[in-house]
Amino acid sequence: MNDQAALAPFTTLLDMKLGTLDPQREVVERRLDDLRELFLEAPPAGDAVVYRVYGIPAPATGANLQCSTTVLEPGTAGREYYMTKGHFHQVRDRAEVYLGLAGEGRLVVATEDGRHTVEPIRRGTVSYVPGGWAHRSVNVGDRPLVFFAIYVGDAGHDYRTVERTGFPVLVVAGADGPEIVANPRYRR
Amino acid sequence: MNDQAALAPFTTLLDMKLGTLDPQREVVERRLDDLRELFLEAPPAGDAVVYRVYGIPAPATGANLQCSTTVLEPGTAGREYYMTKGHFHQVRDRAEVYLGLAGEGRLVVATEDGRHTVEPIRRGTVSYVPGGWAHRSVNVGDRPLVFFAIYVGDAGHDYRTVERTGFPVLVVAGADGPEIVANPRYRR
Repeated sequence: MNDQAALAPFTTLLDMKLGTLDPQREVVERRLDDLRELFLEAPPAGDAVVYRVYGIPAPATGANLQCSTTVLEPGTAGREYYMTKGHFHQVRDRAEVYLGLAGEGRLVVATEDGRHTVEPIRRGTVSYVPGGWAHRSVNVGDRPLVFFAIYVGDAGHDYRTVERTGFPVLVVAGADGPEIVANPRYRR
Repeated sequence: MNDQAALAPFTTLLDMKLGTLDPQREVVERRLDDLRELFLEAPPAGDAVVYRVYGIPAPATGANLQCSTTVLEPGTAGREYYMTKGHFHQVRDRAEVYLGLAGEGRLVVATEDGRHTVEPIRRGTVSYVPGGWAHRSVNVGDRPLVFFAIYVGDAGHDYRTVERTGFPVLVVAGADGPEIVANPRYRR
């Protein structure tokens, strides 16, 4: 027996439409007031929840996996759709996988040297985000966007780099739906 | 930029009911003839597929994640339900997460010193399998059992230990549904 085997297997029930977990183990809430700096055009003050992350905690080691569901509400601030803060992993080379469960979204990913791409998120999309790519999800629909994410247990979060640089592109509401436009505030 | 960032993000479409992937990247098929040794009462010879594993390949390093869907057909050999071979990870401390998508199953997990438990698998179950626990899935329903699994990229598979020892318990069809019984062939 090794130390890891001292941890016992356990099961959590995930509502595949709502994204909630039973038992609810750990919840992070981000409200409009927490996210004002995120948007080009700051939204009016308000404490409405923009997204919740329901976590399944595991030891923060490279042998383990961190899982969570995210429920991102629909809405816009100026022309920008509601989105998550976005981050690099503190241990830069750690990968993450996103499985879309409900709603219609975009996954904006970018490297520190400015390469970027935008992947779809909807029920059944499995997006592979290799290490070195910052990632942010955006709700471009009119219902909550729900996805399940898994990353290597010791990855950690580096929010500060993205706070300083922004992402190279923004996802905004256009006349015919979502548009990807250059971010005028981006600086690497 | 680091080496990992040379790998680009990509998306695969997962049929959440059938478990198939688009594009189909890598498929492992296990047929009845491959699995005869698995069952207490060997099934009649036959090349019917018992399960397929659809993989999303990633580099086999601790920074990456291996993902796959498994589609396990319904059926029995003697009283034992169809099941996967089951394995430890070669790197023993690596965890795995199972997300149930369709059907009705059981996840049998056991340590090398004989501790064991049985978790449910059905749509929305998230089962955490810590390192050091061998894992096998069993279809106890009458439809295909479908689940999505993720593990740390360098975990590898050790099938031989389980071939030698078996699991401490079997899942068999009883008068009132699935029953967990001691495995008379188990030897650790």
